[in-house]
Amino acid sequence: MASNMDQVTSQKIDPEEDDDTAELLGLQDKDFTEILAALEERDHEKLKELFEELGPYDKADLLEKINVSNREDFLKLYDDLFEPEVFAYLHEEVRKIILEGMGAYQIAGIISELDSDDALDLILPLDEEFQHEIIRKLSSKTRLALEEGLSFPEESAGRLMQREFVAIPQFWTVGKTIDYLRAAGNDLPDDFYDIIVIDPAYHVVGEIPLHRLIRATRSEKIEDLALDDTHPIPATMDQEEVAEIFRNEDLASAPVVDEDDRLIGIITYDDVIDVIDEEAEEDLLKLGGVEEDDLYRSILPTAGARFRWLFINLFTAILAAAVISLFEASIEKIVALAILMPIVASMGGNAGTQALTVAVRALATKQLSGTNAWRVIGKETAVGLVNGTCFALIIGCVAGLWFQDPKLGAVIASAMVMNLVVAGFFGASVPILLDRFDIDPAIASSVFLTMMTDVIGFFAFLGLATIFLL
Amino acid sequence: MASNMDQVTSQKIDPEEDDDTAELLGLQDKDFTEILAALEERDHEKLKELFEELGPYDKADLLEKINVSNREDFLKLYDDLFEPEVFAYLHEEVRKIILEGMGAYQIAGIISELDSDDALDLILPLDEEFQHEIIRKLSSKTRLALEEGLSFPEESAGRLMQREFVAIPQFWTVGKTIDYLRAAGNDLPDDFYDIIVIDPAYHVVGEIPLHRLIRATRSEKIEDLALDDTHPIPATMDQEEVAEIFRNEDLASAPVVDEDDRLIGIITYDDVIDVIDEEAEEDLLKLGGVEEDDLYRSILPTAGARFRWLFINLFTAILAAAVISLFEASIEKIVALAILMPIVASMGGNAGTQALTVAVRALATKQLSGTNAWRVIGKETAVGLVNGTCFALIIGCVAGLWFQDPKLGAVIASAMVMNLVVAGFFGASVPILLDRFDIDPAIASSVFLTMMTDVIGFFAFLGLATIFLL
Repeated sequence: MASNMDQVTSQKIDPEEDDDTAELLGLQDKDFTEILAALEERDHEKLKELFEELGPYDKADLLEKINVSNREDFLKLYDDLFEPEVFAYLHEEVRKIILEGMGAYQIAGIISELDSDDALDLILPLDEEFQHEIIRKLSSKTRLALEEGLSFPEESAGRLMQREFVAIPQFWTVGKTIDYLRAAGNDLPDDFYDIIVIDPAYHVVGEIPLHRLIRATRSEKIEDLALDDTHPIPATMDQEEVAEIFRNEDLASAPVVDEDDRLIGIITYDDVIDVIDEEAEEDLLKLGGVEEDDLYRSILPTAGARFRWLFINLFTAILAAAVISLFEASIEKIVALAILMPIVASMGGNAGTQALTVAVRALATKQLSGTNAWRVIGKETAVGLVNGTCFALIIGCVAGLWFQDPKLGAVIASAMVMNLVVAGFFGASVPILLDRFDIDPAIASSVFLTMMTDVIGFFAFLGLATIFLL
Repeated sequence: MASNMDQVTSQKIDPEEDDDTAELLGLQDKDFTEILAALEERDHEKLKELFEELGPYDKADLLEKINVSNREDFLKLYDDLFEPEVFAYLHEEVRKIILEGMGAYQIAGIISELDSDDALDLILPLDEEFQHEIIRKLSSKTRLALEEGLSFPEESAGRLMQREFVAIPQFWTVGKTIDYLRAAGNDLPDDFYDIIVIDPAYHVVGEIPLHRLIRATRSEKIEDLALDDTHPIPATMDQEEVAEIFRNEDLASAPVVDEDDRLIGIITYDDVIDVIDEEAEEDLLKLGGVEEDDLYRSILPTAGARFRWLFINLFTAILAAAVISLFEASIEKIVALAILMPIVASMGGNAGTQALTVAVRALATKQLSGTNAWRVIGKETAVGLVNGTCFALIIGCVAGLWFQDPKLGAVIASAMVMNLVVAGFFGASVPILLDRFDIDPAIASSVFLTMMTDVIGFFAFLGLATIFLL
């Protein structure tokens, strides 16, 4: 019946469809108003009713967006409305604040209800002493799992994986496997898509997607089935590389192995979606000069975290000012130079940022490597030349007419071409070079670039003016 | 045996493990060198051997990164090495160039081997006439599917979905379902994770994950199993909203319905990973002033596409210059003003970009909505005040000492506080306001913001200087 059942009747659109769609998309602003009104009135019954339709994700969204005092009221008065999964969905910053207000015993209760990967996420942001206090309150099995998880490097496959998986020995039959799955009941993970086949030493032999298992006959031996060739992921692999593998191979899940190549967990596509979101966010924020997502952080910590970047920027701005000061005498004679010089610097900065953004993204997605690096740098330099020439013509005319001085127009035009060529060249090569030296191109590139485009913009324009106009 | 089989033996690390890991991560630069050398020598046997280990993703990567003439050689001489799936993995820009060099008949051959969603992606970037020429060469079933796909809006669920899915009526038993799956053989999609349960009118009743079906007994009725509550996705829903739903509900697949609520396709997690990548890339590039990924585009089209953004920026730079020209007389008297003024503007631009980046990302991930908009704007303004005060102290001292003029130091300090407060306020409020008016905040915010921080930076500094220093 794969997509070929006859379409028997036609039916009009349900009048409530729009509401359904809105509901699919999570909490809307009007839902917040309603919920906060019920909280204001301390109406537990009404809240229960409103919460009935909400998934854990929506409840996490609620706790994130409301103000601190409403959040505290909710957790103090109505903590029965928030199931353990809600805490797994919370933004790290908000989760940290909430958990720090709870007792170790309460957190241990939440953790014991979660999958091992979510449990690990929960206690990671807490300080070490508090972590140990919580871990001591857990059952020995959960404790061991968490402690092992903590032993893996940050952002590694080991931190990402869950310990709940389904593995069977290769000598079983399909029938025995299915009987085992039926009997195992609640010992199995909530969701699974592939069954991992292992040898007696717990090494991964292959993987069977469930849809293939279900279509095999009971008497077939597992080892005779067409197993998917798996590339087990080492627990120490960086999560960005894990995401890359899932993307390239369209995997639903993949086994994770320890240093002896033995199966210790699995990573599923939903973990990978989180990683992709996280990495994309990181790159975006870093390019904007923000080192970590601080939306939910309070004023002083936010200002403190952003200070560093602005401080570096202050240095480059003072450097640019020092370049200008070299030409003090020229500016004293022709004030028009002071008026026009920011235009050259600003255009260079923007053109360079375009090249830089494309290069940073291409490096992150591995579309840019040694094989095509020089080609990309050459292209960006040429693009700088083309647009530099166009904008030189425009700004040359504008400046020449504005100050009634064609020579001034020619000077700014020449400076514009130079700065846009420089911008294209450095916009592409700075991130490539930083990446080659294992420095994150997203965070460090733009400060180098603006330094170059400011310094060269001012120097070229004021220098040419000093030579040709004085 | 869920994760509790005894670990029987321990084994040393395979000496080839490092190679295995590298292989997992796709083609490395040295692989390219080897492959290109074999191409150079026209060594078909060697190429066949090298290609044996490559997946379609790797081959697409190869075609993307090598230069145009090598690419043409490959496709002319050794097209047997590139299976249809390779074209599905290609970057849109490169795919377009390659397909435009092929005949309609050859493309039709590729399309008929692909899943309907990949087939649609393939012909979408081609011009309409060529699309029709290709479509005419397809079997009527594939043709109909493609034509219907083309009828859905761009970036909608209808464009994303595949038409290959498994749906069964609710009155079947588990046994009948399994027998059907076994008998269906190649009519089923390559991969599936959930079976969709429908009523006779093809409306979605629910969904059964395969792991639940496999654990049920043969005699059980499908309608008696615990079905997952599904929220069918309307075919016209925007792909960004689809990704949001998958993220919130951790779905592996979801049914797509037409306007009469009838099942017409499914979307799977791997489509959603593509959407997430695409949307993250879009936001990143737009914030950098690049409207579309142009890594693989040639020089002139790239320069042309970037020109528009730079042109808008030229206007704002000229506006800032006009503000400076208001204070020509002041600059003539105190050249130090010309030297210091870019510092105030640049710090404002950077601080504003920090606030703007956080707001744009939070809007994209729905973490920022009406409920917390004012709180975020207030916080960013306060952060501007805190950092503005810090940097006012620093630059006040620097400028005062540099030019031996404490009053000049006081003037630049005051201008710095003002500009960083303005930057925080507009950095957060401009994207929120644009989003309210359904204008993409990622592309339009930064030009407004830099205009504000430049104009106010120059005006505050030069204005205060004119009042207090002359």
